[in-house]
Amino acid sequence: MILDSIHSPEDIRALDQNQLPQLCKELRQFLLENVSKTGGHFSSNLGVVELTVAIHRVFDTAHDRLVFDVGHQAYVHKALTGRQALFSTLRQLDGLSGFPKPHESVHDAFIAGHASNSVSVALGMARARTLQHQDYQVMALIGDGALTGGLAYEGLNNVGASGEHMIVLLNDNGMSIDPNVGALPNHLSKLRSKPAYYHFKKWYRGLFGESPSQSAIYRFNHRLKTSLKKTLWPGSTLFEDMGFTYLGPIDGHDLPRLCDMLTWAKELTGPVVVHVHTQKGKGYAFAERDPGKFHGIAPFDPETGLLKKAPGETFSSVFGKTLSDCAGEDSRICAITAAMEEGTGLTVFEQAHPERFFDVGIAEGHGVSMAAGMAKQGMIPVFAVYSTFLQRSYDMLVHDVALQKLHVVLGVDRAGLVGADGETHHGCLDVSYLTSIPGFTVLCPASFAELRTMLHQALFEIDGPVAIRYPRGGEGVFNADTSTQAAVRLKDGRQAVLITYGTLVEQALSAAEELERSGISTRVVKLNRIAPLDTAAILRETERAKTVLILEDCFENGSVGQQLAAAMEEAGQCCPHMILQNLKDHFAPEGTVDQLRHRFGLDADGVVKTVKEAMSCEQ
Amino acid sequence: MILDSIHSPEDIRALDQNQLPQLCKELRQFLLENVSKTGGHFSSNLGVVELTVAIHRVFDTAHDRLVFDVGHQAYVHKALTGRQALFSTLRQLDGLSGFPKPHESVHDAFIAGHASNSVSVALGMARARTLQHQDYQVMALIGDGALTGGLAYEGLNNVGASGEHMIVLLNDNGMSIDPNVGALPNHLSKLRSKPAYYHFKKWYRGLFGESPSQSAIYRFNHRLKTSLKKTLWPGSTLFEDMGFTYLGPIDGHDLPRLCDMLTWAKELTGPVVVHVHTQKGKGYAFAERDPGKFHGIAPFDPETGLLKKAPGETFSSVFGKTLSDCAGEDSRICAITAAMEEGTGLTVFEQAHPERFFDVGIAEGHGVSMAAGMAKQGMIPVFAVYSTFLQRSYDMLVHDVALQKLHVVLGVDRAGLVGADGETHHGCLDVSYLTSIPGFTVLCPASFAELRTMLHQALFEIDGPVAIRYPRGGEGVFNADTSTQAAVRLKDGRQAVLITYGTLVEQALSAAEELERSGISTRVVKLNRIAPLDTAAILRETERAKTVLILEDCFENGSVGQQLAAAMEEAGQCCPHMILQNLKDHFAPEGTVDQLRHRFGLDADGVVKTVKEAMSCEQ
Repeated sequence: MILDSIHSPEDIRALDQNQLPQLCKELRQFLLENVSKTGGHFSSNLGVVELTVAIHRVFDTAHDRLVFDVGHQAYVHKALTGRQALFSTLRQLDGLSGFPKPHESVHDAFIAGHASNSVSVALGMARARTLQHQDYQVMALIGDGALTGGLAYEGLNNVGASGEHMIVLLNDNGMSIDPNVGALPNHLSKLRSKPAYYHFKKWYRGLFGESPSQSAIYRFNHRLKTSLKKTLWPGSTLFEDMGFTYLGPIDGHDLPRLCDMLTWAKELTGPVVVHVHTQKGKGYAFAERDPGKFHGIAPFDPETGLLKKAPGETFSSVFGKTLSDCAGEDSRICAITAAMEEGTGLTVFEQAHPERFFDVGIAEGHGVSMAAGMAKQGMIPVFAVYSTFLQRSYDMLVHDVALQKLHVVLGVDRAGLVGADGETHHGCLDVSYLTSIPGFTVLCPASFAELRTMLHQALFEIDGPVAIRYPRGGEGVFNADTSTQAAVRLKDGRQAVLITYGTLVEQALSAAEELERSGISTRVVKLNRIAPLDTAAILRETERAKTVLILEDCFENGSVGQQLAAAMEEAGQCCPHMILQNLKDHFAPEGTVDQLRHRFGLDADGVVKTVKEAMSCEQ
Repeated sequence: MILDSIHSPEDIRALDQNQLPQLCKELRQFLLENVSKTGGHFSSNLGVVELTVAIHRVFDTAHDRLVFDVGHQAYVHKALTGRQALFSTLRQLDGLSGFPKPHESVHDAFIAGHASNSVSVALGMARARTLQHQDYQVMALIGDGALTGGLAYEGLNNVGASGEHMIVLLNDNGMSIDPNVGALPNHLSKLRSKPAYYHFKKWYRGLFGESPSQSAIYRFNHRLKTSLKKTLWPGSTLFEDMGFTYLGPIDGHDLPRLCDMLTWAKELTGPVVVHVHTQKGKGYAFAERDPGKFHGIAPFDPETGLLKKAPGETFSSVFGKTLSDCAGEDSRICAITAAMEEGTGLTVFEQAHPERFFDVGIAEGHGVSMAAGMAKQGMIPVFAVYSTFLQRSYDMLVHDVALQKLHVVLGVDRAGLVGADGETHHGCLDVSYLTSIPGFTVLCPASFAELRTMLHQALFEIDGPVAIRYPRGGEGVFNADTSTQAAVRLKDGRQAVLITYGTLVEQALSAAEELERSGISTRVVKLNRIAPLDTAAILRETERAKTVLILEDCFENGSVGQQLAAAMEEAGQCCPHMILQNLKDHFAPEGTVDQLRHRFGLDADGVVKTVKEAMSCEQ
């Protein structure tokens, strides 16, 4: 095994070129063996095996800065930078992150998780490099899907104008998003279909031989830029219009060619785009056939490609199904997704109501502003979006939706702790950012039944902006529908009052049972609506309680707990033990939701422990 | 006067074409007379006189939807849609807003204020129109500056792919931003310099005569799209690549031509861009010479173009000067602006350190992510940005800055109530969004001296992300420097405790004096740092107080007041009168800062009244 001998990228550079195809084969086998056991992002990593090897042949990522975009395509990079042994812990608590993390390795230049930021970050690094008179290389590795995000455009636009030397590695698999979403993907597709690459290849080899010397490249550099390229690609590309030297398209699985092109890109000056055409899922037949299924996948059988555990019903699928049903009854209802049709459960909607289904690409800001326009003209737009990605739309929620009190409905999926994707993906801010914008109604179902009822309420009963926030995955044992009241008492008790919302209600109920067994009479209050809070009703529940604990999986500042504690103080309710049980100011890492709840004291055990400690002072 | 007879756009359509030049002349005189008295946005409105008249000749904005981008170029539109008489109240409390407001007129399709959203909003409207089988026209009127914003690109990209008929009116004055900022402005500049327009003009007139009939246009429509345009413009434009029919460039002051082109655009199908080349400040010599000065201007003498009151030193100018001085001593310091060099006081920095000054265009998200990349590589980037526009960067602050605890410094200008720009421009959310992101330090100077000291602290003493928030305008009577402590007692007292931060400290001090005169012993505590809060120090100040009032000009949820009240409740401090004095959930309109403070009870009078009412219950 060659892979066993690769402990750092230096070992890759020491290999003979003939050994590289074998290394790529072993890397694919390595990915299959590991990801089939742990689950994780698979297709995109299979697609960048040769590209990643080529990067490490040409660049030294200990000094050169490789900025990943989104970052779930970093597994090969991780395996090649001394982290093979950690793959059994992939995406697990205290294990190897599924995304780049500078704290793991000097080879990880920056964190990643959200899309479209890599070009901007890389430009910042390139500018720092130039101002400090250093000479390392800076690269952004970005997929074609992430190019639909406006942030990528802002970055490219500024890079093109800056003249800074940096390399945008465009990993174009031509399928990461719906082909109808955007004009730029269409542009890329046109470039791909041009025969230019093959002509260029022939010409290039004739000119330089297989391994062009740097000096030859230097000599021809200027002429290349000014005339030869124009001859080869008569129509200028969008990137050239933007100020980039455009190289490509290159077959992303032709390793010698990739190495040549990266070497060339390195020697050029100014901004460079290297357009690499890769195949998602490359080398694993099941993933080649259905790359979407293997994009982010649970553990599966490598022989059959079948999931080890069939996926059950989730909050997302219930949301999508219910919304589709409602849209069948009301022609004003539209569904919007930002490149997450499957993840948000909207496939069923798209099939039933294709004319009212809109995938805007990775463009959450546009999704919200477009929804505002639709709402202004009398439609009922519903934007289903992960909590963490909705952060991109903060200003649009304020400016385009809330200021005009428009009836835009948000399906805030993956709210709260999400598990294996870790710190960049937890939805631990939507509580503060949605409840702090005037006029938003925020609903929190804890069961599928509540999600269905609350979606009806959001669509047909509530005016203005409404958000329904629900977690990743399925419901637990709590499957009741309590949604008729904004705040509902689920269990009676006198001494301690536990207040929570969403699926954490199960933890509160378990904790209450345990506290009762210890002789502490405990009340459980479930909030179905966290904005506007039904403060009067909640204050009736907290009155004269010895202990009030508010349980949430969000950060403390701006939390519901803080809002309620403030309301109690204003009302003159002096609770001897007022406890806000939440994430405080800690970004949670990867791990199962149960593990993370436990670590931050947000499970039944944590609640019981805190309440007992508080009340032991007085008993 | 023709203008006197224009009470609605129907009156414009009833005019003879020969009367229009006179109408345009009168409109410019009207703008000069009014804006020179009230202040407001001037240059951009002078630039769109003909374009706005043409729009109202060709479209019926009572049904057709005209979505303004940014919206400060809507004065002409307002004057032509029945609001001439209100111009003496422009940008004043309960007066005519300086931005489009649907509540003012059916002719205002959507609010505006922030840049780059118009295309997305218009697409939402066009989609609603099509789904409802209606046939009104939808337009987005967007300047070239706003095109540097990623949101505009997301919108254009999606419009191009959608095939929806809508018209993007590109108001290209070629100077709204630094020409080096972006690739797209350069592209526009190339288009402008092409002789194509003149050729086209000749050909077009020859083909159709001066007023082409609709049927003729229909007949030639398909051919035009498929072949003639390509002949005229051999290199396809960016917009054509995106899926638009591109018309232009058109001289934006040639009214007959504008009317023809708009008519043509109306009759086309699918997405259309009409590229209009206008001159900012057109028709007023002083503004033509210095359009930047007259962009947003205070009252001035129409004869001389001179301001009636010389602008004094402001928090912005002190910030820029101090930062520039610091950068002279430390070569790591860089300054970033998003197309607001003058507004944020950075001109002095740009002159002293041009190589470390970066104007990224209207691209706040990119500004933050680029700063993060710079900080990661050892620079000290300082992003000076208006509070309300920083909302665009919310996710980048979380994901690219806070998660990695990067030392990015934010100069949060125009924090709190800003005055005449109104609801879209007040900075009433930064307190909640900055303090709720883990790891941010937020400093609040109340005087120039404090701003200087705090900027030094932010640059050299504090780790991780730091924001300094300061208001629009200059300092008041409070000019001390109390910044050595996170929370400082400015005045002693036993019964009431007033807590505030920033320049509201003057209101608190005045209120305290007044309360003392009424026999209520009042303490004033000033917070210099609102994140992290020095809770221990503040709780020592609130202990045993009968009344605690926390004064802020932000919304209540997520406010410092709520955070402190919660801390008091957790600490078991039972304050009989706990008062959060803030905007609650009201978006404030236009008006002077003093007027707005008064309206929302945030001035000394309001504080005195509230405290007296609370304490009268017990005295």
